[in-house]
Amino acid sequence: MGDPVGIGPEIISKALCDPRVTACCLPVVYGDAERLRSGARLCDADLCVEQVASIRDARHGGPHVTVVNPHPMDASALSWGQPCAESGAAMAAYLEAAIDDALDGRVAAIATGPINKHALKMARIHFNGHTEILACKTGTRHYAMMLAGARLKVALATIHMPIHQVPDALCAPDIATVITLTNEALKTRFGLASPRIAVAGLNPHAGESGLFGDEEERIIAPAIDACLARGILASGPHPPDTVFYRASRGAYDAVVAMYHDQGLGPFKMIHFDDGVNTTLGLPVIRTSVDHGTAYDIAGRGIASAESMISAVTMAASQAAWRHRHRDGRDR
Amino acid sequence: MGDPVGIGPEIISKALCDPRVTACCLPVVYGDAERLRSGARLCDADLCVEQVASIRDARHGGPHVTVVNPHPMDASALSWGQPCAESGAAMAAYLEAAIDDALDGRVAAIATGPINKHALKMARIHFNGHTEILACKTGTRHYAMMLAGARLKVALATIHMPIHQVPDALCAPDIATVITLTNEALKTRFGLASPRIAVAGLNPHAGESGLFGDEEERIIAPAIDACLARGILASGPHPPDTVFYRASRGAYDAVVAMYHDQGLGPFKMIHFDDGVNTTLGLPVIRTSVDHGTAYDIAGRGIASAESMISAVTMAASQAAWRHRHRDGRDR
Repeated sequence: MGDPVGIGPEIISKALCDPRVTACCLPVVYGDAERLRSGARLCDADLCVEQVASIRDARHGGPHVTVVNPHPMDASALSWGQPCAESGAAMAAYLEAAIDDALDGRVAAIATGPINKHALKMARIHFNGHTEILACKTGTRHYAMMLAGARLKVALATIHMPIHQVPDALCAPDIATVITLTNEALKTRFGLASPRIAVAGLNPHAGESGLFGDEEERIIAPAIDACLARGILASGPHPPDTVFYRASRGAYDAVVAMYHDQGLGPFKMIHFDDGVNTTLGLPVIRTSVDHGTAYDIAGRGIASAESMISAVTMAASQAAWRHRHRDGRDR
Repeated sequence: MGDPVGIGPEIISKALCDPRVTACCLPVVYGDAERLRSGARLCDADLCVEQVASIRDARHGGPHVTVVNPHPMDASALSWGQPCAESGAAMAAYLEAAIDDALDGRVAAIATGPINKHALKMARIHFNGHTEILACKTGTRHYAMMLAGARLKVALATIHMPIHQVPDALCAPDIATVITLTNEALKTRFGLASPRIAVAGLNPHAGESGLFGDEEERIIAPAIDACLARGILASGPHPPDTVFYRASRGAYDAVVAMYHDQGLGPFKMIHFDDGVNTTLGLPVIRTSVDHGTAYDIAGRGIASAESMISAVTMAASQAAWRHRHRDGRDR
């Protein structure tokens, strides 16, 4: 559910009524039933919500929506758009319960709603977001963020840092890790047998033979070579201004970008509405909405559920591919 | 013509036969008639080429194509894809003659073909490219590069430098200059009465209130404020991963990007084939192909003329808008 006072409850309500969601999975909401009912009323969603304490008690397949609530609270004390220690603690508890059930195989994938760092802090939970909680609880050291759409998939070598820190933050082993995680994900969660991965350069024209920077030769090319040596179809460093277009036209299955806007700028040109954030390297499947809690419009029923719907359908698709991949491996 | 041994002659030949070109202007080629005839033969273009020493001798309007050649040479000594001192000297002479005639009002605009830095160096001409020659010969101190297409226009605050140099290269006066040049160009050469200009931040999320860098507050916002004070409809600093998409959907008439790939990555997602490079701030109109001399395929007749055609039609369009703007101002 993400933050119970953000737009999470209303976009989940809309998503649960959407045929794209109901066709691809049996949804279970980790959150608060009362908040979900309120969210459903806001957008006239016809939901029959049934709250259970544990997924073991869930009755799947009926007309009702199962809500697992690991953090019962007085929901009437909450107000839309007003985060507090209670809402912060709740959102973390929802995620942790979902992770436990995913690790146990009781849920096939997790699609996370939006949370807020400051609300986590109010609850004295010192994580920056969902991804850090997921990595910690699953004991994952190497993970990466991927933005995925039908026409373009982009994994990031660095994420939230000032541009001036990016060159020093890059190192060959970390880039090789992101390339490797991308390769693994394309195989096991997107169903590609031999993924072709383009690696972007850092500088204009990928450095133009050292004229505009040497990170390509010094850091990126060695990372690509290391991956090639392990049989990964990695190529580059490619000029960053054209590699995303070429990938979107089918030349590559994914691009590893060196920094946030290098990847997200081109990605959002063609997947602004339907792009999904997914975390590579976790033992559980996790997708996420690519927006925040939108406190300013929470409780008005006007928030778009498109990103939530895309996150759920992609999570289901990844789960199906993982299933097939395991079957294939087991044979 | 650009480099007479590159793909210039053949893409010009194709462009001169294209109805989009013949419908919008009376083309004059600054180059070598023999090279143009060779280019035309390569792609079966039916051109009647007439060389004159000066545009004063040109007979416009017939079935022939006028070629002004300020640098007669033995064209038979040249080979496709083989730059030399002679080809380097020629390409510079073509441009200089075109600039002189544009400054004198004898040509309305210049669309430049591709040249090569190394060939310029062979001729001991110490400019990096067309733009530097144009700025020098026209005495222009402040100029900027814009990539322009029907859906998106992007001007660059910095261009060819390593990413690690970008933060230090940015300063408020220079950014304000690029915003101002963009505003002027949108008014006088793209016919917009009140251009809305978005200015991108440098860092992810435009710095997220200083969390990921302070260049937005320290450098970019003051530049925007200075422009607002002079009546320019500038806004920002905007998050760089979404501002180009929003501009392409009509929210802004142009975006000022802080560095090469921030602007070109998103731009090429939607204008890979038909984007035009145009120089802001010059007293003459100048557009350019957005590719190089392509020595590897020069002389085979296979090079695409789309960028050349777009450059010529946009040059003609800018000339028409400048004409109307001057008329409007003179009334």
